[in-house]
Amino acid sequence: MRYLVTRNLLTLLTLVLLAALAGAQTQPQLNLMPMPSTMQAGTGQLIIDKSFAVAVTGLHDASLDRGVQRFQAQLSKQTGIPFRPQAGPAHATLQIHADRGRERVQKLGEDESYELTITDSGAKLTAPTPLGVLHGLETFLQLVQPSANGFVVPAVIIKDQPRFPWRGLLIDVSRHFIPIDVLKRNLDGMAAVKMNVLHWHLSDDQGFRVESKKFPKLTGMGSDGLFYTQEEIREFIGYAHDRGIRVIPEFDIPGHSRSWFLGYPELSSGTGPYTLEDGDPIMDPTQESTYKFLEKFIAEMAKLFPDAYFHIGGDEVDGKQWNTNPKIQAFIHAHGMKNNQDLQAYFNQHLQKIVAKNHKTMVGWDEILHPDLPKTIIVQSWRGQASLATAAKQGYSGLLSFGYYLDLMWPAARHYAVDPMSGDAANLNPEEQKRILGGESCQWAEWVTPENVDSHIWPRNAVIAERLWSPQQITDADSMYTRLGALSLHLEWLGLTHRSARMRMLHRMAGSEDISALRVLADVVEPVKDYNRWDDAKGPIDFHAPLNRMIDAVYPESDVARHFQGFVEKYVQSGYKDQAAETQIRTYLTAWRDNDAKLSPLLGQSFLLQEVTPLSSSLSVLGGAGLQALDYLDKSQSAPDSWRTQQLALIDQAKTRKADLLLMVAAPVQELIEATGKPGGR
Amino acid sequence: MRYLVTRNLLTLLTLVLLAALAGAQTQPQLNLMPMPSTMQAGTGQLIIDKSFAVAVTGLHDASLDRGVQRFQAQLSKQTGIPFRPQAGPAHATLQIHADRGRERVQKLGEDESYELTITDSGAKLTAPTPLGVLHGLETFLQLVQPSANGFVVPAVIIKDQPRFPWRGLLIDVSRHFIPIDVLKRNLDGMAAVKMNVLHWHLSDDQGFRVESKKFPKLTGMGSDGLFYTQEEIREFIGYAHDRGIRVIPEFDIPGHSRSWFLGYPELSSGTGPYTLEDGDPIMDPTQESTYKFLEKFIAEMAKLFPDAYFHIGGDEVDGKQWNTNPKIQAFIHAHGMKNNQDLQAYFNQHLQKIVAKNHKTMVGWDEILHPDLPKTIIVQSWRGQASLATAAKQGYSGLLSFGYYLDLMWPAARHYAVDPMSGDAANLNPEEQKRILGGESCQWAEWVTPENVDSHIWPRNAVIAERLWSPQQITDADSMYTRLGALSLHLEWLGLTHRSARMRMLHRMAGSEDISALRVLADVVEPVKDYNRWDDAKGPIDFHAPLNRMIDAVYPESDVARHFQGFVEKYVQSGYKDQAAETQIRTYLTAWRDNDAKLSPLLGQSFLLQEVTPLSSSLSVLGGAGLQALDYLDKSQSAPDSWRTQQLALIDQAKTRKADLLLMVAAPVQELIEATGKPGGR
Repeated sequence: MRYLVTRNLLTLLTLVLLAALAGAQTQPQLNLMPMPSTMQAGTGQLIIDKSFAVAVTGLHDASLDRGVQRFQAQLSKQTGIPFRPQAGPAHATLQIHADRGRERVQKLGEDESYELTITDSGAKLTAPTPLGVLHGLETFLQLVQPSANGFVVPAVIIKDQPRFPWRGLLIDVSRHFIPIDVLKRNLDGMAAVKMNVLHWHLSDDQGFRVESKKFPKLTGMGSDGLFYTQEEIREFIGYAHDRGIRVIPEFDIPGHSRSWFLGYPELSSGTGPYTLEDGDPIMDPTQESTYKFLEKFIAEMAKLFPDAYFHIGGDEVDGKQWNTNPKIQAFIHAHGMKNNQDLQAYFNQHLQKIVAKNHKTMVGWDEILHPDLPKTIIVQSWRGQASLATAAKQGYSGLLSFGYYLDLMWPAARHYAVDPMSGDAANLNPEEQKRILGGESCQWAEWVTPENVDSHIWPRNAVIAERLWSPQQITDADSMYTRLGALSLHLEWLGLTHRSARMRMLHRMAGSEDISALRVLADVVEPVKDYNRWDDAKGPIDFHAPLNRMIDAVYPESDVARHFQGFVEKYVQSGYKDQAAETQIRTYLTAWRDNDAKLSPLLGQSFLLQEVTPLSSSLSVLGGAGLQALDYLDKSQSAPDSWRTQQLALIDQAKTRKADLLLMVAAPVQELIEATGKPGGR
Repeated sequence: MRYLVTRNLLTLLTLVLLAALAGAQTQPQLNLMPMPSTMQAGTGQLIIDKSFAVAVTGLHDASLDRGVQRFQAQLSKQTGIPFRPQAGPAHATLQIHADRGRERVQKLGEDESYELTITDSGAKLTAPTPLGVLHGLETFLQLVQPSANGFVVPAVIIKDQPRFPWRGLLIDVSRHFIPIDVLKRNLDGMAAVKMNVLHWHLSDDQGFRVESKKFPKLTGMGSDGLFYTQEEIREFIGYAHDRGIRVIPEFDIPGHSRSWFLGYPELSSGTGPYTLEDGDPIMDPTQESTYKFLEKFIAEMAKLFPDAYFHIGGDEVDGKQWNTNPKIQAFIHAHGMKNNQDLQAYFNQHLQKIVAKNHKTMVGWDEILHPDLPKTIIVQSWRGQASLATAAKQGYSGLLSFGYYLDLMWPAARHYAVDPMSGDAANLNPEEQKRILGGESCQWAEWVTPENVDSHIWPRNAVIAERLWSPQQITDADSMYTRLGALSLHLEWLGLTHRSARMRMLHRMAGSEDISALRVLADVVEPVKDYNRWDDAKGPIDFHAPLNRMIDAVYPESDVARHFQGFVEKYVQSGYKDQAAETQIRTYLTAWRDNDAKLSPLLGQSFLLQEVTPLSSSLSVLGGAGLQALDYLDKSQSAPDSWRTQQLALIDQAKTRKADLLLMVAAPVQELIEATGKPGGR
């Protein structure tokens, strides 16, 4: 760790320098995400035609070769040009050079830097290790675009390296099982945005998802039959390694562990029997047999997962079973512990020793932080930068996940604004700052299935990837959204279904081919935010219920609403004079006003659409109200107060949650209506 | 064969009876393709919710079990309801019963019939063999739709069986290699429309695609490195068998065999050396060594492909090499042959014996028909029903492919109108008619890649499937198109990309997210027909050229043009009084008139779009001209002759081929313009 932290500091210092230089240069506007550390625009562009060939000099290994093959296949897909699967000649278009090999098991802090120079006559990609080459090839692929002269990449010099060495995505596969092929395409997406850690949340209350040969009842009784075999896992880890991605397993204990107790109730602090559906049993940390079990289990898993880090969860331990178990209470008193937190620390101390014995470093959530634990552990914070800063001050390394929960349905800009080094972390001394290794976005899976998980992760995850890779001062949201749009298209070429799945799901709901009116509605709504969907679910969630409603189909963030909001702001700021903006606004409003009449017949035909009927009529009301407001503003007339009051009441109604959805264009229409009180300007 | 032919007659007679009965019943309008032999509407509907379960009684075998599992998985996909992967209880929603097992190697004429009874309380599917069960399950899946009360299937009694026992799709994988996974999703599509033969065109001039362990240079030198291993082929045949589909290999000889001669020039009638790109070498049928080679090769392939039929091609033998080879000419004279046809018959006689020795029946194209061949062979006609009738009269069994060439870019209705029993075949006596076993659609692969092959096959292939399965009198094109639209959506659930690939390809050409204007243009064009694309290609086709132009992206048939044509016909037939039709026409015309202004900026940015610039402006001209015509017709005015002459000249210009595409809405706009000469009516 010391070595790593030192390297990390050097990296950071270099980045700061490079970034400062970058500020002084002309930054070409390229659709790259994440933005490189430095870029310098060149002159002209390199044409990609069927003569395009790749040559590799310097290091050659299987991982690099497969990376180059994937690159060629991907370039073929993007352009439709069938490149021959053969090594390029010496005068190849793209010359690749890596100095030395990479680690057999990818290490935290391995050199990921690269330099990519593109001129109108060729391109050169150099990197210390194949990891940098992989990143550089992804950058190259993002640069390819059609032009009047053919497919091209612009001339540019890029020197790039990550800000943080740990850039992860957590995928929860317990609540809803996600098959390997779906995970693989998400790894492809991660590689495209230069993320390098998949945090695999493999067990939780609702299901245990890894085959254990020593304890077969973990999946045999602790899952619905859906889990990964060890062979699948090994193959999957190889797939991730090929893409420069480490795989960290998480087995969440002593809480979030109901699924363990169906097969092994003796591990719990209660008596059982248990079901996957309900209850809050937790592990019994007072008995030697628990540790015997964990020793065997962790030894087995430590062999299966080669990464140096091992995540033991440790979050949200519901102490009910501890509180009501006299044996456990007696144990707490006998050992002079003050509370359940002390008992969990006792548990974690044992756990840490087991993990260390298997040559792994233990990672856990905020709650594991306790002075009794050695400084080698890593704390992952879902509570915030303050919590991370506290850990860093105490000498612990940490990862930020607070602000990066994709399941909360936040807009990309909100995630983008969260920096691991902000808040309390900004006040850490340099030594302490080094301990912040990066962060992880989190895809908790209460409300996703293999069908829609891509659209919950993408494209928003890319802005968190950029936050963790790119220099800290790259924060412009407009630029981010422009590049995010391009990236979203790019991700489709990798096989992600974040866009296509929505269309299929709308077709399912409609049961018919013409879904244009349904799309108009789907385009302007978003799921309710934070935990509002949960909170209103009556009783425990049924994890086998269909997720085929409108809320499951729509994007977490509405691009149309954001664009509309932008036009309204422009129009208002121009003192209602910006004709181009007004035309756009009118086009939207007219389509919305007229949409309900087109959509209504469809809504009546499908039980899945009935619940959106009020949304559709609200959207029409918004369209009509907005158009009336524009008419007043066009004539520079004040609208009567009574009219405005009435319209604002309708807006309030339109803003209320319906079918667990929010009409995201209500607020900008409100702005137009309110403007009619001050038509001459602001 | 005798047995089969007799069974076929019985089947036909039964069908005629059932169909006659069906005519007298109320035919429910259900979105099924192919249409069942008989259907009788019931009352109410069966609700599909998460309690849905399946039970199997009678025969149980692995093929049936896997079929039921696929059905459940597919039903889950379509509804979004996660059905548990477990056998249903005795009171399951859907009761399945098969009397007896199916053949280990699927036979021509095996019983494929089934009965499906759906009431509001449950469904029952019975069949003599699992083949019928598979078909019945596909019918069930096509019936599922959302309703106000949930997902439902309507109450109905279906008794169904095929009209012809041989219902095939030929896929050429020589000209462009098609990977196994793409073929597999096409098998899924075939199963959905009850096709039962994949005719795998595995070798041709441009590439040899099957691993031969005895003759490794066939693929080693005779392909671009893309071919199927024997292991892949075995697994693929199992996949097809699971779906009730036979796999017939075709190795096309003695012509269409250039790829053989790169590794084995001694088989040819010339001296070589040869390349995959050019030339018309053919096999030398005069030397014993050719037959020695074929004996070994066919023995190897006969083991690999278990089906009882073996296709040897035999079409389009270009006799140049025979004519110019003195040794071959001497052979022809020495054996008293009249011409090259006699020599090919001599070759085929030898070939037939080799095929028969391997316990296979030989199949070949029209050209193999020769009185010297035994009556057991099967003739596949690409020349027409007359050719098929000739063969049948001579005692040969036959298959129709004339009229079913998907690569000719015909509209579905044109394929639909082609019946194997029409033309000369209608005049055959019953004994002769029995010899017509069915037909095959053909997907020749000069102009397809794995990316767009689905859209060249689907959905049009489904109407050929219906022609071969459903009773002969089911011919209504309007009904066909309605059902085809629903089927096209349904096929997407199976993973076919016939719709999604177009969007991806348009995005590639545009290089940007908003492709709405590009779609408007793409929606109204079709590729040039027949062999017009070929004929105008200069020199030999480059099979490694990118297929990424507009012509490669668009659908072979424009739904929008067909709909527009329909509205124009309605409007004209109403004496220009049908207001609803006129509104639709105006909406289309306005969008087209205004589209060029929106699209032009994009067209300039991409080399792939430059060629469609004239199409885009033509479409705008059509929109404007059509709107002017409507204005005259609205006012019941005759338009001035000079105006009409001018507009018709523009139409002529709009009708000319541009970028290998045709503007399919030119003709109906012409109809509107011509109508302005007789505004009072027709």
